Amino acid sequence: MMHILVTLLLVAIHSIPTTWAVTCTGCVDLDELSFEKTVERFPYSVVKFDIAYPYGEKHEAFTAFSKSAHKATKDLLIATVGVKDYGELENKALGDRYKVDDKNFPSIFLFKGNADEYVQLPSHVDVTLDNLKAFVSANTPLYIGRDGCIKEFNEVLKNYANIPDAEQLKLIEKLQAKQEQLTDPEQQQNARAYLIYMRKIHEVGYDFLEEETKRLLRLKAGKVTEAKKEELLRKLNILEVFRVHKVTKTAPEKEEL
Amino acid sequence: MMHILVTLLLVAIHSIPTTWAVTCTGCVDLDELSFEKTVERFPYSVVKFDIAYPYGEKHEAFTAFSKSAHKATKDLLIATVGVKDYGELENKALGDRYKVDDKNFPSIFLFKGNADEYVQLPSHVDVTLDNLKAFVSANTPLYIGRDGCIKEFNEVLKNYANIPDAEQLKLIEKLQAKQEQLTDPEQQQNARAYLIYMRKIHEVGYDFLEEETKRLLRLKAGKVTEAKKEELLRKLNILEVFRVHKVTKTAPEKEEL
Repeated sequence: MMHILVTLLLVAIHSIPTTWAVTCTGCVDLDELSFEKTVERFPYSVVKFDIAYPYGEKHEAFTAFSKSAHKATKDLLIATVGVKDYGELENKALGDRYKVDDKNFPSIFLFKGNADEYVQLPSHVDVTLDNLKAFVSANTPLYIGRDGCIKEFNEVLKNYANIPDAEQLKLIEKLQAKQEQLTDPEQQQNARAYLIYMRKIHEVGYDFLEEETKRLLRLKAGKVTEAKKEELLRKLNILEVFRVHKVTKTAPEKEEL
Repeated sequence: MMHILVTLLLVAIHSIPTTWAVTCTGCVDLDELSFEKTVERFPYSVVKFDIAYPYGEKHEAFTAFSKSAHKATKDLLIATVGVKDYGELENKALGDRYKVDDKNFPSIFLFKGNADEYVQLPSHVDVTLDNLKAFVSANTPLYIGRDGCIKEFNEVLKNYANIPDAEQLKLIEKLQAKQEQLTDPEQQQNARAYLIYMRKIHEVGYDFLEEETKRLLRLKAGKVTEAKKEELLRKLNILEVFRVHKVTKTAPEKEEL
């Protein structure tokens, strides 16, 4: 009896396709029928060829990338193809078409509006969130910055901490106007954070950056909800935009109390 | 010890998400992040809201529908949304947006190029392959006929068996020219079948239809590969196009040997 139970247990455990595999939110699972028709509908598609039920660090990086990409743009399809080397060999032919090495999964491709125009992420490049973002930025006009960051704001804030007060005030006014044109609630919240930090650096100087970074890190390390953690991470990413290699501007005199 | 093994076994079996559920080839699994961005990329989308790992007759009908639709058109996205009422309630909010009744899954919708313009398959309509095809034909210009059928051919072959010989010959010539313009290999094969049957009915008369139908059914019932079975089904579907309610034309005299 014991023997049967143990065998049954092993069979059952063996058939659990690691369903605890991380669900890749925002990832569209494609197969031989849907692949071409879906890829050609998007200006760009990042497609991960992998085992059927992927898990582990690389899959988690791709999952994080999917979330960031969906926040940044509508023009990028994030897709996965599960290649099976057992049973009906689902998607094997599709994998062969792009010469994926199923001993070296995942293979990641960027398609440019059709199934024949693509670039492959070099196999020596680690599959990390930042490398995936860089892969897209290097091969498309799309920009997937750090969560919370707004490309337009980043571009005008380089070296902000070192520019003269008058120029800082002009930039505050300019980005204030931009912020009012934003429609996406999360982008509005991010833009408000940019403006708060611009005013603070203008009023108290660059030291504010370190103090605020430490404060947010303390909060983030504490007992906070996932949503709050993501908000704090966005703010930390925005603060990083103000970091300068060398502070050349003297801090404003602290007003005597 | 036995008690632990039994409990372990139940836990293991419980976590097998019926992965033996039928894979819906060609179906794109959408979630709250990818739904709107993907649906708005296609002129039309048929979306099935269901439990996370669906199985059973209705799911199999949807799977068959997906295969047929992919053969018939590139303008129709076939998608599924797995709604979980446990754990992180994945896609629950998406289901609520379209007021799906998770006690009465599946709910099937036809979207017309964006996530706000849609028609729902009435809940009293059975989820069958033919009803799904009819649902699309009734609400879009798309035509998903029986596998193997070519809309353009069907339209000119109504009552073919009863029209005069000269007109039959003219139609054979016309569709011969059409066949040569076709590029898709399977469509070419189907068009050839149409032409063979047109010539046979022209030469030996309507009796050919019953004889050939019986012959194909015998073959199909025998030991044939899945691909061969699908080919025979396509031919049977094409033969059906020639069926008339009433034969008004006398069969040509059999040539004396």
